[in-house]
Amino acid sequence: MPLPAPSVAPSMVTARPLQYTMLPVPSDLAIAQATEVQPIADIAAAIGINEEDLDLYGRDKAKVHLAVRDRLAAAATAAHADAADADAAGGGSAATAAAGTGRLVVISGINPTPLGEGKSCTTVGLSQALGAHLGARVMTTMRQPSQGPVWGVKGGAAGGGYSQIVPMEAYNLHLTGDLHAISAANNLLAAAIDTRLFHESTQTDEALFRRLCPTSAKDGSRRFAPIMFKRLAKLGIEKDNPADLTPDEAARFARLDLDPASITWQRVVDLNDRSLRRITIGQGPAEKGLTRETGFDITVASEIMAIMALATSLSDLRARLGAIVVGTTREGARGGGGQPITADDLGVGGALAVLLKDALLPTLMQTVEGTPVLIHTGPFANLAHGQSSVVADQLALQLVGPDGYVLTEAGFGADIGGEKAMNIKCRAGGLTPAAVVLVATVRALKAHGGAPAVKAGTPLPAEYAKVDVDMVRRGAANLARHVENMRAFGPPVVVAINKFATDADEELAAVREAALAAGAVDAVVANHWAQGGAGAVALGRAVMSACDDAVKAGGGLAPPPLKFTYALDATLVEKIEAIATRVYRAARVEFAPAAAARLDEFQRLGYGGLAGLQGVGWGRAQHCWDGNSWGR
Amino acid sequence: MPLPAPSVAPSMVTARPLQYTMLPVPSDLAIAQATEVQPIADIAAAIGINEEDLDLYGRDKAKVHLAVRDRLAAAATAAHADAADADAAGGGSAATAAAGTGRLVVISGINPTPLGEGKSCTTVGLSQALGAHLGARVMTTMRQPSQGPVWGVKGGAAGGGYSQIVPMEAYNLHLTGDLHAISAANNLLAAAIDTRLFHESTQTDEALFRRLCPTSAKDGSRRFAPIMFKRLAKLGIEKDNPADLTPDEAARFARLDLDPASITWQRVVDLNDRSLRRITIGQGPAEKGLTRETGFDITVASEIMAIMALATSLSDLRARLGAIVVGTTREGARGGGGQPITADDLGVGGALAVLLKDALLPTLMQTVEGTPVLIHTGPFANLAHGQSSVVADQLALQLVGPDGYVLTEAGFGADIGGEKAMNIKCRAGGLTPAAVVLVATVRALKAHGGAPAVKAGTPLPAEYAKVDVDMVRRGAANLARHVENMRAFGPPVVVAINKFATDADEELAAVREAALAAGAVDAVVANHWAQGGAGAVALGRAVMSACDDAVKAGGGLAPPPLKFTYALDATLVEKIEAIATRVYRAARVEFAPAAAARLDEFQRLGYGGLAGLQGVGWGRAQHCWDGNSWGR
Repeated sequence: MPLPAPSVAPSMVTARPLQYTMLPVPSDLAIAQATEVQPIADIAAAIGINEEDLDLYGRDKAKVHLAVRDRLAAAATAAHADAADADAAGGGSAATAAAGTGRLVVISGINPTPLGEGKSCTTVGLSQALGAHLGARVMTTMRQPSQGPVWGVKGGAAGGGYSQIVPMEAYNLHLTGDLHAISAANNLLAAAIDTRLFHESTQTDEALFRRLCPTSAKDGSRRFAPIMFKRLAKLGIEKDNPADLTPDEAARFARLDLDPASITWQRVVDLNDRSLRRITIGQGPAEKGLTRETGFDITVASEIMAIMALATSLSDLRARLGAIVVGTTREGARGGGGQPITADDLGVGGALAVLLKDALLPTLMQTVEGTPVLIHTGPFANLAHGQSSVVADQLALQLVGPDGYVLTEAGFGADIGGEKAMNIKCRAGGLTPAAVVLVATVRALKAHGGAPAVKAGTPLPAEYAKVDVDMVRRGAANLARHVENMRAFGPPVVVAINKFATDADEELAAVREAALAAGAVDAVVANHWAQGGAGAVALGRAVMSACDDAVKAGGGLAPPPLKFTYALDATLVEKIEAIATRVYRAARVEFAPAAAARLDEFQRLGYGGLAGLQGVGWGRAQHCWDGNSWGR
Repeated sequence: MPLPAPSVAPSMVTARPLQYTMLPVPSDLAIAQATEVQPIADIAAAIGINEEDLDLYGRDKAKVHLAVRDRLAAAATAAHADAADADAAGGGSAATAAAGTGRLVVISGINPTPLGEGKSCTTVGLSQALGAHLGARVMTTMRQPSQGPVWGVKGGAAGGGYSQIVPMEAYNLHLTGDLHAISAANNLLAAAIDTRLFHESTQTDEALFRRLCPTSAKDGSRRFAPIMFKRLAKLGIEKDNPADLTPDEAARFARLDLDPASITWQRVVDLNDRSLRRITIGQGPAEKGLTRETGFDITVASEIMAIMALATSLSDLRARLGAIVVGTTREGARGGGGQPITADDLGVGGALAVLLKDALLPTLMQTVEGTPVLIHTGPFANLAHGQSSVVADQLALQLVGPDGYVLTEAGFGADIGGEKAMNIKCRAGGLTPAAVVLVATVRALKAHGGAPAVKAGTPLPAEYAKVDVDMVRRGAANLARHVENMRAFGPPVVVAINKFATDADEELAAVREAALAAGAVDAVVANHWAQGGAGAVALGRAVMSACDDAVKAGGGLAPPPLKFTYALDATLVEKIEAIATRVYRAARVEFAPAAAARLDEFQRLGYGGLAGLQGVGWGRAQHCWDGNSWGR
């Protein structure tokens, strides 16, 4: 029996090699603006996205409906079942060919200098090599940049040189409004908290209850809003008519008794606005003295950003938003004693989901060589996940199909971004990478080898322009550790040596030697910044070969399962110890009394089973523990 | 010689009467969700907007390029010249028919209750009557709602009943991101102010200068960024190489000496977040004690929102943004003495314009009967213009052509919203309304006639359900004053009596009688809330007739010029006195010493020639004087 025809186009007709490149390489902006950007609808069609599954945002960007993922997954399952039937009847191996999704490649890096070492640029260049030069079906998933760095010295995050996402202005600024939606949702919750504190401090129980359940203009009766039944259930009150509540029940329902000192939820702005880090609010005369110290985070550090990165559907998103913990009740008050207060207790979980329903859809853009890129969720692995979302990866893996590739960037060094990709994101999304690409540069290795610190906005110290193989070799200790760390998760590691014009051949050779010695399956010099995809063809071949080997090792259908650093049922303390000792090679971990008490509290309240405290509720808990910053 | 074919489609094929309406009228949300929303590309095509001039944002909304306006205006001018030539040759009147744009109708209202009295609903209903029932070419321009009321008791602002803009969720929430872009730009400027204060307080003149003009990584030289030449020119320094500046020139260039006490620029958030109204910032340890009292406004009250409403092109927008005054130099410091510091002095004018380039384009949506609506800029006439933009009106007037109608809502009571429409917006945009529609309700007139105050979220007092013609007559004094005020600007006034189910015929008759007695050319009961456009057909005929009369009175091509309340070259004090006495009927105005001093300062610094202080720079100056709040 023949296999069903694939539901996606057989080749990527929009991918096309650059017709020329120039030396010296022009500015990023000049290259971006000289690029003939293809209609995004064409890019979508080439990878198999129908018009009705696309929300255009102008001509150059579009959001993709998650229904595409679900439909393709269902079709693949059906095809697999058919093929298995055929196999059973005829003894063939059709099932092998029909099942499975694309191959996921995680791209991370060694510890960078403040200038960045080209992880995004390498991700884009590799995508161009695979799609426009090696004939592969490929999609790239990237995190959206924050406007903080965009307006600072570092600038945009669309890659660079001849390996960029276009149009770069749209990519670096509002894009399709996801970060703005996250800010709006985050700050709506913050306003709900402080408004609630105000009303609880100035109203009687009865007045609070009346305001929460106002009389209807129609018949003068009071009703519970649908969302209120969650709180009633939490309080064990099984009544559906407000008039039936006893005064004590009405008081318990209406008064959250949130302890202001316990509040972890901050406001956000997608800017570097230093003077908002610590502020006092509520100083207007109408606030009756109800001041409070709090602060603003940058939007991409919002708990909601983390939630967006891990949510798998709109209903999952809604549930996660409602479960956000903003603080606890006053210890001992009303006998409750430090119980978590959630967004649903405040009645705003639904409003947050409505604000974020479009932001849950990844945005499709393109590289300068016309390969498709999905952009979703936020940057900054040091204070967030620092990578694209579970849904973007799932969508891309379905779209490229069993023989295709999905490249996903895991921001910052591999110790933070790569570790979170595996232990948190891949675990949450059921994703199994076939290979890891680790980006290294001679410049960063020199910095690790003893050259003076690189500072954004000032000229590079002379050491970086001078050939010094020994300095590179000393710095390669950093590379070796990252290779070992990534290998511990299972997938083969390919080192991409991102070439700069000043690098000497013997320095590049030293990096390759160190990478192979540390256990990388390959180490390849790539020059995609200056040459586009053509400069990363050798890297592309190495990655394809590593993926083939991984899939073979997994039995031919998928790579072997990941080896996580810790089990989900370990305690929070055990998880921190595992990361600190196994990834950061700490001898042991000593917990400050405040940190230990906090971890105890999280464990007591039922949050011990989480993989990191991001994306699961509890506001700024990541600042207490974010999965790996303790080892430093 | 025949006239050139019109460049727009001859009929509005997307406009179509509702097939049925239900009684009792379902909820706004139920009606909106039951509406079959037409592809916005079809709505655009029907009014003559080509695909390449449209940026789709999903299927239901799109931004329209301003090039459409400019192209149609150029074509009309050329046609007019041709026709004039033909007239000269043949003695005909072809020029009369070829020239001119559509007829602009300003829709305002009497003073509303906190529930609103249906100005938006009437604007939408009238648009449906004209477009779907009376065969007219019509476009409606509306302000975008703020999420403050959306999440509060009042709710959305898309109209209501069977006179709504759809889809209502998109309209009431992010729309196409304009408010988010305005927040981002406003807050970028705020961050630039405080960061500058910080660096100026912690750095030497020389270090400041070095940071502003860092050495290039390429050749180690220092260069001025293009935007810096504005400041150099302002300081009278005619040098283009940083190395040539004397230490004193470098210090004057680098140190703005902004007086923290003079800063009028606040941060914004598009939310009702009461505890942010008054705050202290800069309390983090890294800020070295540089705290400052400031606050957040709601986004739609931002100076930038006012600028967006008045800007006529991207270059005009750029110039206005750069000219924003954020405060003054320290009195006497460096001999400057209280000179304005602008966004361009801070070097961020270009960044603000880049953030706002898409927000300058109006968004196209549709009514439930398929007539086109342009949505642009913000609400709240009490703290902003409270109406759609100059560019939206100009674009719509070109699109509907000489026989068409543009309905534009001027929010709040006609004393605020209507007055600003005439003296500020129409003056800035060269717009001449052909008629004014004044919306009145029996409910609001009863409130003005002595019934107990209406409160959102509580049942209406019994007085509103009881027939009481005398109470309506007493309240009609409010209506009469608004009719007189609007008549003073010139255009004929039609009163739209927005019918509620509880209104008695004799109450409605009393309103009509009072309106005509006050000088309205007509007063028509309209029931568009319950019936859609069909309920506003009589109102539509009255408006068309009033426009015809106005154009005839103007000589057949356009209505007579507006009679403004004050001349632009009057002093600020004279302008305030004119509005207070002529619109609000104050006997005279006494200025508090602080207000008088502030007005003097504005006058001294060259801001005396403005029509209102909004949209022209100077941050929150509207809180000192916004053109009419002084009379109250």
